[in-house]
Amino acid sequence: MISVGIVGGTGYTGVELLRLLLKHRDVQVRVLTSRTEAGKPVADMFPSLRGHTGLAFSDLDIDVLKQCDVVFFATPHGVAMKHAQALIEANTKVIDLAADFRLQNLAQFEKWYGMEHACPDILKNAVYGLSELNRERIQSAMVIGNPGCYPTTVQLGLAPVLKADKPLIKPESIIIDAKSGVSGAGRKASMGMIYSENADNFKAYGVAGHRHHPEIVEALETISGQKGGFEQIIFVPHLVPMIRGMLSTIYVDLTDEGAQLDLQALYEAFYRDEAFVDVMPAGSSPETRSVRGANQLRIALYKPHSHKLIILSAQDNLVKGAAGQAVQNMNIMFGFAEDEGLSGIGLLP
Amino acid sequence: MISVGIVGGTGYTGVELLRLLLKHRDVQVRVLTSRTEAGKPVADMFPSLRGHTGLAFSDLDIDVLKQCDVVFFATPHGVAMKHAQALIEANTKVIDLAADFRLQNLAQFEKWYGMEHACPDILKNAVYGLSELNRERIQSAMVIGNPGCYPTTVQLGLAPVLKADKPLIKPESIIIDAKSGVSGAGRKASMGMIYSENADNFKAYGVAGHRHHPEIVEALETISGQKGGFEQIIFVPHLVPMIRGMLSTIYVDLTDEGAQLDLQALYEAFYRDEAFVDVMPAGSSPETRSVRGANQLRIALYKPHSHKLIILSAQDNLVKGAAGQAVQNMNIMFGFAEDEGLSGIGLLP
Amino acid sequence: MISVGIVGGTGYTGVELLRLLLKHRDVQVRVLTSRTEAGKPVADMFPSLRGHTGLAFSDLDIDVLKQCDVVFFATPHGVAMKHAQALIEANTKVIDLAADFRLQNLAQFEKWYGMEHACPDILKNAVYGLSELNRERIQSAMVIGNPGCYPTTVQLGLAPVLKADKPLIKPESIIIDAKSGVSGAGRKASMGMIYSENADNFKAYGVAGHRHHPEIVEALETISGQKGGFEQIIFVPHLVPMIRGMLSTIYVDLTDEGAQLDLQALYEAFYRDEAFVDVMPAGSSPETRSVRGANQLRIALYKPHSHKLIILSAQDNLVKGAAGQAVQNMNIMFGFAEDEGLSGIGLLP
Amino acid sequence: MISVGIVGGTGYTGVELLRLLLKHRDVQVRVLTSRTEAGKPVADMFPSLRGHTGLAFSDLDIDVLKQCDVVFFATPHGVAMKHAQALIEANTKVIDLAADFRLQNLAQFEKWYGMEHACPDILKNAVYGLSELNRERIQSAMVIGNPGCYPTTVQLGLAPVLKADKPLIKPESIIIDAKSGVSGAGRKASMGMIYSENADNFKAYGVAGHRHHPEIVEALETISGQKGGFEQIIFVPHLVPMIRGMLSTIYVDLTDEGAQLDLQALYEAFYRDEAFVDVMPAGSSPETRSVRGANQLRIALYKPHSHKLIILSAQDNLVKGAAGQAVQNMNIMFGFAEDEGLSGIGLLP
Repeated sequence: MISVGIVGGTGYTGVELLRLLLKHRDVQVRVLTSRTEAGKPVADMFPSLRGHTGLAFSDLDIDVLKQCDVVFFATPHGVAMKHAQALIEANTKVIDLAADFRLQNLAQFEKWYGMEHACPDILKNAVYGLSELNRERIQSAMVIGNPGCYPTTVQLGLAPVLKADKPLIKPESIIIDAKSGVSGAGRKASMGMIYSENADNFKAYGVAGHRHHPEIVEALETISGQKGGFEQIIFVPHLVPMIRGMLSTIYVDLTDEGAQLDLQALYEAFYRDEAFVDVMPAGSSPETRSVRGANQLRIALYKPHSHKLIILSAQDNLVKGAAGQAVQNMNIMFGFAEDEGLSGIGLLP
Repeated sequence: MISVGIVGGTGYTGVELLRLLLKHRDVQVRVLTSRTEAGKPVADMFPSLRGHTGLAFSDLDIDVLKQCDVVFFATPHGVAMKHAQALIEANTKVIDLAADFRLQNLAQFEKWYGMEHACPDILKNAVYGLSELNRERIQSAMVIGNPGCYPTTVQLGLAPVLKADKPLIKPESIIIDAKSGVSGAGRKASMGMIYSENADNFKAYGVAGHRHHPEIVEALETISGQKGGFEQIIFVPHLVPMIRGMLSTIYVDLTDEGAQLDLQALYEAFYRDEAFVDVMPAGSSPETRSVRGANQLRIALYKPHSHKLIILSAQDNLVKGAAGQAVQNMNIMFGFAEDEGLSGIGLLP
Repeated sequence: MISVGIVGGTGYTGVELLRLLLKHRDVQVRVLTSRTEAGKPVADMFPSLRGHTGLAFSDLDIDVLKQCDVVFFATPHGVAMKHAQALIEANTKVIDLAADFRLQNLAQFEKWYGMEHACPDILKNAVYGLSELNRERIQSAMVIGNPGCYPTTVQLGLAPVLKADKPLIKPESIIIDAKSGVSGAGRKASMGMIYSENADNFKAYGVAGHRHHPEIVEALETISGQKGGFEQIIFVPHLVPMIRGMLSTIYVDLTDEGAQLDLQALYEAFYRDEAFVDVMPAGSSPETRSVRGANQLRIALYKPHSHKLIILSAQDNLVKGAAGQAVQNMNIMFGFAEDEGLSGIGLLP
Repeated sequence: MISVGIVGGTGYTGVELLRLLLKHRDVQVRVLTSRTEAGKPVADMFPSLRGHTGLAFSDLDIDVLKQCDVVFFATPHGVAMKHAQALIEANTKVIDLAADFRLQNLAQFEKWYGMEHACPDILKNAVYGLSELNRERIQSAMVIGNPGCYPTTVQLGLAPVLKADKPLIKPESIIIDAKSGVSGAGRKASMGMIYSENADNFKAYGVAGHRHHPEIVEALETISGQKGGFEQIIFVPHLVPMIRGMLSTIYVDLTDEGAQLDLQALYEAFYRDEAFVDVMPAGSSPETRSVRGANQLRIALYKPHSHKLIILSAQDNLVKGAAGQAVQNMNIMFGFAEDEGLSGIGLLP
């Protein structure tokens, strides 16, 4: 039984962490902080938690957090990096669900997040928490940068062809047409988020540039072990009038070698032992509702031409795309069963 | 051709007024104000208007407004009453879509809207703009208090039994279980309004008290010409995960006289000449989508027992419940065809 | 570990039973039948189940069902009653999620369901599975009629005032204005169910008569131990554009005795030991999303006048209103912890 | 004033035609047919039409249709082609909203629609009704094949670069990632269409092949006047949980010549005189709600790299993608003002 802290419990990743951790057999949530709601029982804010916890929000007290075995940061960008040093000195592990420890490229971080990085040295040793791809390094990490939601769908969608011995795809051809439910933007009182602006509507956004682009580029370079071409990736996110769910439709050109391979078999073999990545049979179409509330990512493949591959990659943005993957990383870090607390079945319908 | 001003054009009633008035053959919208967006073309904020108008928001300039024949206030409560005096002195008519001129009872106004009334004398002569019931007084009014959305469904739903020579219903028995789409709360960046808090969800709100309760009480007392019993009316609003649409389910006890009447026939006769009130055949259920975007209110009646009447009353909260009725009142005030600009068919599906 | 069968696994209550039972530690689902899909893996129909079960649909074989300890019928009305005799003879318990064993009044059953009852003798000994109210009888029952979704909200909403020693409410005054998500109508390819007919829309239905009315009347008579007045109950269901969720807004007149009691305290005491019924603090409004996917019913009380009580009663129609309560009943029947398999937290947002 | 017939008035394109034509000043709808609903007032099926028409459905009587000046077919594929001969002999024009007269390639028609073409000779002279591109031929056409919804977004999105003197894009590079509201699938009682299967969900469909692919290929070949490369176009449609609305995100590689041009200026010039095509300013994102109910298509352009163009193309699938464009074609055919009956402003919110 480990002791867990959550910093920033008033957002959607915060309440989702609670939903998962309160039913996790190996952890106890000890502290939950909020700048604005200290003293308020969390179940007053999120009535879904009534009867499941008596926790109240408290002010952030670093000494209390240091007594935890691990602290999740479900905060805006820039918070975790201010506290990481103190926590790791106290041997408290850190899992940041924001972007502080995602990008090794400091210039990109500063460009896209508009702040200087507070602890570049810690960042160097931080591990990018894409569980399936970095499992070994996560085991011994002190600080995890939990991946962005879009980048998770892209990396798991492309890893099998990027990890192959020979180049199977042309990096510069990658087009990611991504679609997300509205909860991906968090729990913020902004005009763009209100119901009547989003319901019965569809649009692209961030076409001219999105923070997840540099994360995707860096991550794919790392996965493939090569540099060339990824910076040309096209990434266009769209907003879907639904609460949860994310689908990336990824288009790539195959090399001659890629064109000759049985990619369906390649993907199935690559993810054979993964509990949370599901390569669906040929001809399938992963629906976001099939993973609603579940720590699952589903993939389907199509080859419209000999040299073109379409990858459909679906997840719940708040689970495998955020809180679920964070708990999965915690399970890896502490040697728990990787699916402990994460074996729930998606809510369909 | 009259000249029209709109004060407060950035909300949903503002854009809805524009949708209707820009196609109205007898008016020209001359000025559109916004405290925060002066200089911005309105079509930049509401792209549905691209190609239909070159109007830009301007600061509120009372001298410009005085040159209009009529000014609509699509503002928060308390704005219209500050400018009414200057406008009527310039012979400019005022139609307020907020609450400043709805309640004759000043104590109630001050209690529910938390402000002193700025011009009680003007209020006394202001006309409550429930078009079908107050048509004659509207014709000669200088200032109109456009009714609240819920009160419109209730008044039109109950008027035929309240206007009868003999008491047909028991006022103290009235229960109004009302349901509204989210746009009824306006275009506000508040946490309670955001998509993920409202989609796939249903709840009651304001059960302990809602501003439309005193408006309903006062209006029903006026319609019926009697005082007793209406203050006991039960009014429970609910929030429906849809953009537009409002349905009130009204339960009333019939008197012995009411129980013996053919109420279906009574309602049909009462609204026979009304273009915008539709008494549906017995057994119907008015759907909100049947009036989506249309200045129409549909009513259906049920008698589960000899002494009980159920009235279903549906409208688009932004049209017959707000901007449409305001234009209808303008048409009456200026002697235009009452349905000019308002004959559009609801958008179904 | 008991062995479970599910008859009719292609509907929403079927897949919901699977979602709950596949994670239940004391049961194994052995057989899942479908008239139309025999041979098909259930995860092909419901991809949310991929990775969680290898079960395939099979034809209904009564000999296979007899080997189960309990069989759930998630079928249309009229199926369970045909097989109940054979099953109880084999000592297999029956939990019917349809209406075959809900109504003791055969005339009402035949009137509303359009069929003769196949086994009135078994019906006599069947137990109405409102878990909290009939726990003792459920423990020893062979056949359970699982309550309808609307009736569950009404009974749990009214039980505390109906079970009191003295009459606290006037039965003939009860008005139930009920609202349900679309999944309550099941998984049926009918025009009225399609997306574009239901989204962004709100309406009442079944105002002239609904099958749950006689069930509510009979159940409330039983709970209160008296006959008078309940047949006059008004029950008006409405359809909400959401998948799951149900809220009943119940209006009742209080007797003088009821008016003097602290009803909030009465309700809290009544449900103090119940895991699945939550009496919220005064002033609350239960949201359906707070119980999305959870076997929970939340209640809030309002007293607009001394002699009027408003009860808000919310649940997930597929869980506490159907599959969840069925599993709860199974837990009671077999002596399992009542919350085994049912302790999941609602999915919010 | 011309006389209009509508064959197949029970679907969504049928009711949408009525919404537009009943307010059109130059037409009178004389007859509305339905195989299944003959005798029923259309307003009984579509209550949004109550008060706007007394029309009732009738059986298809070719002699009655022959008395019309124009007949719209809002029917399943294969109906219009059976009646076209008789109608044009009677000098009655035909506008088919299904696919009978869209594809000149008979082999493709038969492959994708599973039927032999009934009148290839008429097809040869039929005009593809993409109003902006084929205006002259439409003026004198007897038979119009009204374009599919997806193909409309693609053709108007690509026409400016395809119509240029020099090749500006590489046809084989075109990727169309398209998204549609559920009404695009029509008004059909099928399991895949029901609310609870589509709400709060997102998925691709028809990835392995969709009927609009050959239509897009043929149309783009025609527009560009060249054959090569278009058959390799990638087209992946997705289903959005909204009623109306369609957005195509189109990715194309630019030639060196295309890379050097000011494409924003090219598009603005190309559509300068078009009332229904709106090239938005650089940096815009067309939202589907901005055209809800309006006969408008909005385009925005992005150039992520020197040789890559992204085109966002949004419309209401039932208006510019179906009924609206059909009315626009009728206006052209009969010499009416092209925007008569089509100048309504989109319903936002």
